[in-house]
Amino acid sequence: MPLVRISVAQDISNEHLQRISDAVHESMITTFDVPAKDRFQVLTRHAPNELVYAPEYLGIGHDGPVVFIQITCNEGRTLEKKKALFARLASSIEAGGVIKAADVIVNLVEVKKENWSFGNGIAQYAP
Amino acid sequence: MPLVRISVAQDISNEHLQRISDAVHESMITTFDVPAKDRFQVLTRHAPNELVYAPEYLGIGHDGPVVFIQITCNEGRTLEKKKALFARLASSIEAGGVIKAADVIVNLVEVKKENWSFGNGIAQYAP
Amino acid sequence: MPLVRISVAQDISNEHLQRISDAVHESMITTFDVPAKDRFQVLTRHAPNELVYAPEYLGIGHDGPVVFIQITCNEGRTLEKKKALFARLASSIEAGGVIKAADVIVNLVEVKKENWSFGNGIAQYAP
Repeated sequence: MPLVRISVAQDISNEHLQRISDAVHESMITTFDVPAKDRFQVLTRHAPNELVYAPEYLGIGHDGPVVFIQITCNEGRTLEKKKALFARLASSIEAGGVIKAADVIVNLVEVKKENWSFGNGIAQYAP
Repeated sequence: MPLVRISVAQDISNEHLQRISDAVHESMITTFDVPAKDRFQVLTRHAPNELVYAPEYLGIGHDGPVVFIQITCNEGRTLEKKKALFARLASSIEAGGVIKAADVIVNLVEVKKENWSFGNGIAQYAP
Repeated sequence: MPLVRISVAQDISNEHLQRISDAVHESMITTFDVPAKDRFQVLTRHAPNELVYAPEYLGIGHDGPVVFIQITCNEGRTLEKKKALFARLASSIEAGGVIKAADVIVNLVEVKKENWSFGNGIAQYAP
């Protein structure tokens, strides 16, 4: 059920894009109760002047390349699960090379369970 | 007031992109109380490795091409209206050819009425 | 903490894109209590048939070029702050040339403070 938007620099290779996509999905499976088959991602690549980030914020330096990950998901997960997801995303993306943990920027948008249709015009999660 | 993000494969023709855009807007008019003049859409086209979807989820197979539709709208619509919107989106997009009802993936993000400006720096929907 | 998505026509020059990016950030600093270092933006450029807008809605004509600005931010700001942000965005973008105040379309998506990670896998804003 999450819909994940992943934004990276245009010069990221296809191989690394795949690794990032896989790392995001694996992180959601292992920490966020997302079924393995529940994978829906929109990836976008950007010119240098289209991904804008502070060189430093909250004591964390960003020298890029960065990845912005915006996850729309169902509401109600605990803070502990969110923290586990953030930690896993950063470590597993860094493990794939290219992007450091410091440059993994994540945002969650929570919605009601009834706000999804996964095909055939049905609200599969509605009560 | 909805802001609609529509993501499709890059090889969708301009003609079919127009049909999808029209089908989305018509569906919102007929089922979701959206005024005909209230049309704001951001369409993006993606390489094959940039639109990621499960081959099967919840018993629905996806062999593409898919369309991801994320609609940011005002909060408060009933479940019945949401179900009607999902059904209409799937059927009207399928009717336009190219994309099957099974491959129409929809998500709603609900916000407060005061969270919009439609030009001139005014919060037109604020109380 | 805001994550800002800015969508413009593909023929906007790099110089004007920079001005729009700067105007959005300056508006958030001056009206929305956003720290100067807290700058995270995803910009996208679109072909004419990929940015769809009504020629007129709520009495405001749109003949383009338009900019769609979707800001994901923490919940809880007052209506007065939102109105101030909308006004500032419209005036400061218009001051940069190219885009008129009437064509500045803004939407806010509010989330919980715990829904962010700004690097290193930490939920920096969590209580």
